[in-house]
Amino acid sequence: MPVTKIVLGENEIPTSWYNVLPDLPEPLPPILHPATKEPTILPPPLFPRSLDQQESSQERYIEIPEEVQDIYKMWRPTYLHRAYRLEKALDTPAKIFYKYEGTSPAGSHKLNTSVAQAYYNKKEGVKRLATETGAGQWGSALAMGCQLFDLECKVYMVRVSYEQKPYRRIMMETWGANVVSSPSEDTEIGRKIRKEDPDCSGSLGIAISEAVEDAATRDDTMYSLGSVLNHVLMHQTIIGQEAKKQLEKADAYPDIIIGCIGGGSNFAGVFLPFVKDKLDGRKLSIICVEPEACPTVTKGPYTWDFGDVAGMAPIAKMYTLGHTFVPPRIHAGGLRYHGMAPIVSHLNKLGIIETRAEHQVPVFKSAVMFARAEGILPAPEPAHAIKAVVDEALKCKESGEAKTILLALSGHGHFDLGAYDEYLSGKLEDYEYPKELVEEALKQLPEVK
Amino acid sequence: MPVTKIVLGENEIPTSWYNVLPDLPEPLPPILHPATKEPTILPPPLFPRSLDQQESSQERYIEIPEEVQDIYKMWRPTYLHRAYRLEKALDTPAKIFYKYEGTSPAGSHKLNTSVAQAYYNKKEGVKRLATETGAGQWGSALAMGCQLFDLECKVYMVRVSYEQKPYRRIMMETWGANVVSSPSEDTEIGRKIRKEDPDCSGSLGIAISEAVEDAATRDDTMYSLGSVLNHVLMHQTIIGQEAKKQLEKADAYPDIIIGCIGGGSNFAGVFLPFVKDKLDGRKLSIICVEPEACPTVTKGPYTWDFGDVAGMAPIAKMYTLGHTFVPPRIHAGGLRYHGMAPIVSHLNKLGIIETRAEHQVPVFKSAVMFARAEGILPAPEPAHAIKAVVDEALKCKESGEAKTILLALSGHGHFDLGAYDEYLSGKLEDYEYPKELVEEALKQLPEVK
Repeated sequence: MPVTKIVLGENEIPTSWYNVLPDLPEPLPPILHPATKEPTILPPPLFPRSLDQQESSQERYIEIPEEVQDIYKMWRPTYLHRAYRLEKALDTPAKIFYKYEGTSPAGSHKLNTSVAQAYYNKKEGVKRLATETGAGQWGSALAMGCQLFDLECKVYMVRVSYEQKPYRRIMMETWGANVVSSPSEDTEIGRKIRKEDPDCSGSLGIAISEAVEDAATRDDTMYSLGSVLNHVLMHQTIIGQEAKKQLEKADAYPDIIIGCIGGGSNFAGVFLPFVKDKLDGRKLSIICVEPEACPTVTKGPYTWDFGDVAGMAPIAKMYTLGHTFVPPRIHAGGLRYHGMAPIVSHLNKLGIIETRAEHQVPVFKSAVMFARAEGILPAPEPAHAIKAVVDEALKCKESGEAKTILLALSGHGHFDLGAYDEYLSGKLEDYEYPKELVEEALKQLPEVK
Repeated sequence: MPVTKIVLGENEIPTSWYNVLPDLPEPLPPILHPATKEPTILPPPLFPRSLDQQESSQERYIEIPEEVQDIYKMWRPTYLHRAYRLEKALDTPAKIFYKYEGTSPAGSHKLNTSVAQAYYNKKEGVKRLATETGAGQWGSALAMGCQLFDLECKVYMVRVSYEQKPYRRIMMETWGANVVSSPSEDTEIGRKIRKEDPDCSGSLGIAISEAVEDAATRDDTMYSLGSVLNHVLMHQTIIGQEAKKQLEKADAYPDIIIGCIGGGSNFAGVFLPFVKDKLDGRKLSIICVEPEACPTVTKGPYTWDFGDVAGMAPIAKMYTLGHTFVPPRIHAGGLRYHGMAPIVSHLNKLGIIETRAEHQVPVFKSAVMFARAEGILPAPEPAHAIKAVVDEALKCKESGEAKTILLALSGHGHFDLGAYDEYLSGKLEDYEYPKELVEEALKQLPEVK
C-alpha cells in the first residue's frame, strides 16, 4: 500500500489566511444593523476593531499573527488521509482523501478561529468573552482559546445539552470557562424567558441572545461567534490551504469536494482556497450537505434575516428558515442553525457550489461504515458529508470513473456515542422536514427595503 | 517560538519492533504453567504460535509485517511535542517533551499491539478473539484490530464500567465487537459467580478468567491480552523508537523518562529503546509512576503469582499485591492491576528503572495544569506521570538545571471527564493503601519451588 497520509512539517503550515471577498465574481451583500436596517459594520460593542476590519477586508491574504501561528503548531498541520480501506469496502475506482480536524485538543476545526478571536480581543484590551454553545464544540474551543490568552470566558450552553451532555461542559470548565445553562438567570432575556416558561429547554437562538446581551452590557466583554461571519470562515481557510498543499504532494487535484454545512465555517474553510481555481475555469464540483430536518439552503429562501432569535444580532442576506425556527432534535447539533454563512449562501446562489440534504439514519449508516473501514469515529455533522462521499464513490463504481474526492472531516464523535448507540440498536429515527413550522417562522422575517 | 512538534514522515516509521530480551544483563525468569508450575510457553489453546515465539525470542529486532505497517500508517507516526507552555507555567529551565498516543482512532497506545495480535491470529486461521476490558481502552483497541482483519471479537467488560461508562461499550460495538457485562452468563465461572453473588460488580481478574475460559473452550477462538506479556511490550516499542528519532531531530536526549505503569506496556514501549543506552553507560533516569491505591512495585513483593484471579493464567515472577486483591476504585482504571509486566519488574529489581507512587488528587491537579497549558486533556493513567514530570521540572527550577524530560502520554481523557468533574468540584478523594486487603491477598500466592 502506498502513502496513507500526506504529512506536512510545521514549516509548511500556511502563514496567511485566504480571504475570498476580492475574488468573488459579484460583491457580497453587506450586513444590516438590526434596528436601523442600514448597512453596518460588526457592531463595536460586540466585536473588536481588528475582526470587523477582517470582516470586510479586500486583501486576498491576511497574515496570521505569530502568536496564533505558534498555537496552531500545537496540533497543526493536520493529516490528509487517503481512505484506501473505505475505497476497498465500496469497491470503487474513486480516490477518496479526507482532511481530519479531530486530532485538535478540542476535537474539531473550531479552534482555528477561537484562538484567532481570543488573540485579537486580548490585543485590543478585552478581558472577557461571552458566547453561546449548543452541544459544546464551539464553547470548548473558545474556552481553550481564552485559556491560552488568559481571558475570562463565559459560555451560555443550551439547557437540554447542559443537562444531557455534561462531558462537553466539564471540558470547558477544565479549560477554565464559566458555563451556565441557557436560559439563565444571568441576563435579562434569560430571566424573562424563564419567568414565562420555567421548563424551557433552551435553543441556540436564545443562547446567542443571552451572550450578545452579556457582551453589550459589560464594558470588559466582547461577543464571539463560532461560524457564519466572514472572518470566521477566513480563519478556517488554514484547513483548505493545507489540504491543497497535501494534495499537490500526492500529485492529485479533487474533482469533487464534499463537506457538511451548519453555519458553514468548516466546509468553507476547506473549499474556499479551491474556489478561485473554479472561477478561473477549473472543472470542480463543490457539494454541501445539510440535514433534511433543517434544510436551510435546499428549502429556505435567499433573503434578509436576523442571526439570532431575539433580533439583536445583525441582519444578513442568506438562506434561512426564519430566525424563530427551532429545528427538530437531530444528533448533528452543529447543523441545527436557521441560517447560513453569507459567503456560502452567495456562492450557492451564484451556482458555484451546490447543496443537498440527507436524513440522519442513512447518515449514521455511512458513519459506521467509515468507522469500520478507517477507524475514526466521525461526529454526526461530518457524517452527513460521508453519506454524500459514499454516494459519489458508488456512482464512480457504476460509471468506472476514478474521480478524486476530498472530504472535509471536521471532528470526532467521542461525545456523540449515544447517537451511535441509537443507530446500532435500531432506535434512531428520521425527522421529516417541518414545513409548517418553517412557514410560520418565515412570517417573522424582518422587513428590509 | 521554535519548533513545537517534531514531525516524522510515514517513511520514517520504524519497520521493526525492538526486543529487549537479548540485551538484558540477567535473563528474565520463565513463566510457569498454572497447574504444573513448571516453565512453560504461552499455552497453545490460548495464544497462536507466532506470538508465543515472540514471547521468548532472542532476536533483537523483529520485522513488523507489511499489513501491520500499513495499518500503523492510519495514525502513526504520532507527534513528539515540546511542552513550551507547561515549561512557562512552571517557570522551569527543564526541557519537557511528550510523546502523545491519544490521536489514534481508539485514543491510546493500545492499538499498537491489538492490530499486531489480530494480524497473527488471522494468519494462523483463528476466527475469533476473546478478551477482557476494564474501563474499555483495551477492549476498544482490540475491537478495531479485529474489525480490520475481519475477526469476531468478544469482550468481557467489568460490570461496573459496563453500566457506568456506556461510551466505550458503544465504541466497541461500532467497531463490530460483541460486548457483555462481566460476570456474564456466557461462561461457567461467570455463571458460578453470579449465582453466588447476583450483585457482583465484577473485577478485571474475573473478566480475565471469563475470557480465558471462553478461548480455552472454543476451537475457533484465541485469547488476547493488552499488556503485561513480553510480546505486548515489544509491539509498543514502536512508540519509543519513533520518540528516539524525533529527539535526535531536535538534537536532544532525555535525562529523565517518565511514564505510568498499570500492566506496564505503554511505558515499557517508550523506555525500552533507551534502556540499551543506559546499560552501555549512558546516564539516564527512568521513572515509573503507579497509584498509591494500587502500589504494586513500591509496596508489593517480587515473587511468583498468577496473572488472573481464577488461577487459570500462567504464573510469572513479578511485583504483585496478590492475584485476589481488588484495588480501590480510583479513576485510573488502567492502573488497577495486581501485578506488573515481568520485564518491568525485572528491570526495577535490577535497579535499571525506579518507581514511585502518587495519590489521585495531586495527579488530577497536574492534569488540569497540563490541559490549561498544552490543550490536551490527558487520561487519568498518564496524568500520574504528569505529576512526576511537574515535580522533576520544579526540582530543575530549584537547582537551575536544564534537564531534558520525556513524558509518555499514552492517551486522552475524553471518556474520563466525570473524574475531572469530581476534581474540579472538590469531590475527588484519595484512597489510602489498603494494607490489610493486600496482606490477605498475599496469603493466596501460589506455592512455587
